Amino acid sequence: MSETIASLKFGDDGLLPAIVQDDDGGDVLMLAWMDAEAVRRTLTSGRVTYWSRSRGEYWRKGDTSGHRQYVRSVASDCDGDTLLVRVVQLGAACHTGERTCFDGRALPVVVGDPVTD
Amino acid sequence: MSETIASLKFGDDGLLPAIVQDDDGGDVLMLAWMDAEAVRRTLTSGRVTYWSRSRGEYWRKGDTSGHRQYVRSVASDCDGDTLLVRVVQLGAACHTGERTCFDGRALPVVVGDPVTD
Repeated sequence: MSETIASLKFGDDGLLPAIVQDDDGGDVLMLAWMDAEAVRRTLTSGRVTYWSRSRGEYWRKGDTSGHRQYVRSVASDCDGDTLLVRVVQLGAACHTGERTCFDGRALPVVVGDPVTD
Repeated sequence: MSETIASLKFGDDGLLPAIVQDDDGGDVLMLAWMDAEAVRRTLTSGRVTYWSRSRGEYWRKGDTSGHRQYVRSVASDCDGDTLLVRVVQLGAACHTGERTCFDGRALPVVVGDPVTD
């Protein structure tokens, strides 16, 4: 376990981003941050723990809101500096009460097309 | 457009993380970084552009590899400090040649269960 965590690359602030994806359906729910201890807790406890940059404390998702996240799988990326956490999400993932933190927040884009562009 | 970008919250280094998701099937492909100019190019050109932290330059995905990413949608999260970019991905998203940067990189976990935990 400690070897697994030691292989990850944390930023200068000791954190790496964790992408959280709904294991049922594949929606991207949110992105939050973990230090080595938050990763250890997430890998070993079945529940997802983050480091809150704003509050400066560990934050086990759902302890206050009831919107718990149960770990289904965790993968690192090719550089070892990002995690993808697949979860069973109870209730809303976003503190606003929306299902995902990205709901209703589309930006205006020019859509690309692989055939014509 | 400039108003949209001004509403985003970039880090002290001027960057924010962009989660890239396959619009066809929903796989999370990678995470990379954008500054305001990379966001502007991504929103307006139909192709995804990042800021490469290691090379210190803009990087329009696929210009070298041919593995282009065509923009389908871009959403910000509730805090405005993360983007979710849905794309049509040509070929492999990962520079290793794998489809996603997370393929084959599972970490050992204790799986959580909402019924018993």
